[in-house]
Amino acid sequence: MEHKEISKAVLKRLPGYLAYLKAMPEGSSAYISATSLANALGMGEVQVRKDLAMVSDGGRPKIGYLRSSLIDDIEQFLGYDNTTDAVLIGAGKLGQALLDYSGFAEYGVRILAAFDVRPVTDKTSGGNPILPMEQLAAFCDSHKVRMGIITVPAVHAQEVCDLLIACGIRAVWNFAPTHLDVPSNILVQNENMATSLAVLSMHLQAQCKEKK
Amino acid sequence: MEHKEISKAVLKRLPGYLAYLKAMPEGSSAYISATSLANALGMGEVQVRKDLAMVSDGGRPKIGYLRSSLIDDIEQFLGYDNTTDAVLIGAGKLGQALLDYSGFAEYGVRILAAFDVRPVTDKTSGGNPILPMEQLAAFCDSHKVRMGIITVPAVHAQEVCDLLIACGIRAVWNFAPTHLDVPSNILVQNENMATSLAVLSMHLQAQCKEKK
Repeated sequence: MEHKEISKAVLKRLPGYLAYLKAMPEGSSAYISATSLANALGMGEVQVRKDLAMVSDGGRPKIGYLRSSLIDDIEQFLGYDNTTDAVLIGAGKLGQALLDYSGFAEYGVRILAAFDVRPVTDKTSGGNPILPMEQLAAFCDSHKVRMGIITVPAVHAQEVCDLLIACGIRAVWNFAPTHLDVPSNILVQNENMATSLAVLSMHLQAQCKEKK
Repeated sequence: MEHKEISKAVLKRLPGYLAYLKAMPEGSSAYISATSLANALGMGEVQVRKDLAMVSDGGRPKIGYLRSSLIDDIEQFLGYDNTTDAVLIGAGKLGQALLDYSGFAEYGVRILAAFDVRPVTDKTSGGNPILPMEQLAAFCDSHKVRMGIITVPAVHAQEVCDLLIACGIRAVWNFAPTHLDVPSNILVQNENMATSLAVLSMHLQAQCKEKK
């Protein structure tokens, strides 16, 4: 189906639907309605109905969606069926953990290799390659890599980002706790775990003070 | 100093300052001004000046902050000096990667153990313990754990969250791609990697279409 313009709010909910649909037991009905999906996830029926209509035209009145088709439609919509190859820059502890984490394959992302200015080792404990930065440009070129993951310290993140863009990267997943300046055709998605931990710690500290 | 009310936007910037300050080379000046920090990070001087004044009263006109004191003040503010003990629920691939990732210690968070309904192994490859869910309540009680990390599939996240709260958890770091309902005194911080990947994939797909 022709994809309509979709908001980030809808995009945020789709992985939740997908996870639920995929986790349903073998013996479940082949069909699922927006109503039962909404009830199962504790969400509003109207919202779920609208969201599903955005990504699939397989819904039938009083019957709902064929579950397997709905899964396909959501996955196709999210691009999970086209594998995106990515490189990761900064093979520290976080970088190596991400490189060895095989769960991204579910979301259509495959991290081909990590790059580091001073690789301590040439392989992670999971056997994935860590290459010197000098090889980045040639690697991105030959593998047609479009996604870059940044796990270097904040101070080096901008220069790494500039380098990735020069190497043809068009989407950046940034784990460095800093803002990145990029041209308008480049998308940066920030994953700021340090911020999350700071927010959580602040909450616990505030609760401590209340008790005193 | 007495902590003022602080916005989430400020909290987001503090880890960036901290990372920069800690990464400065040995031979750097002992003092740093808000202006030079702003220039180094490509940020607005007024904003940096205000942010630093929120967390430290050590700034002196024309001299700036003693770098080591500023680092201490930011870390204390963020609660990084008080280690927070956490438990993690869901010892799948992501859960094990987080459990073995030692970088959270820098942010004052220590994951003591992972729990799983059906532990496949009793230790991660990094040697960290994976315990059966039945032991969660007693463990949280004896270790006075206040933070819980959820890495179970989305469908199970709410029941796990309810269980954590019943075990005394007050701050939840949620990696499951779903919304969690909690009482008002509980803070949930969502880390939705599936959403990030969906947003990045959508951007790459859109770019592809433009080129055709």
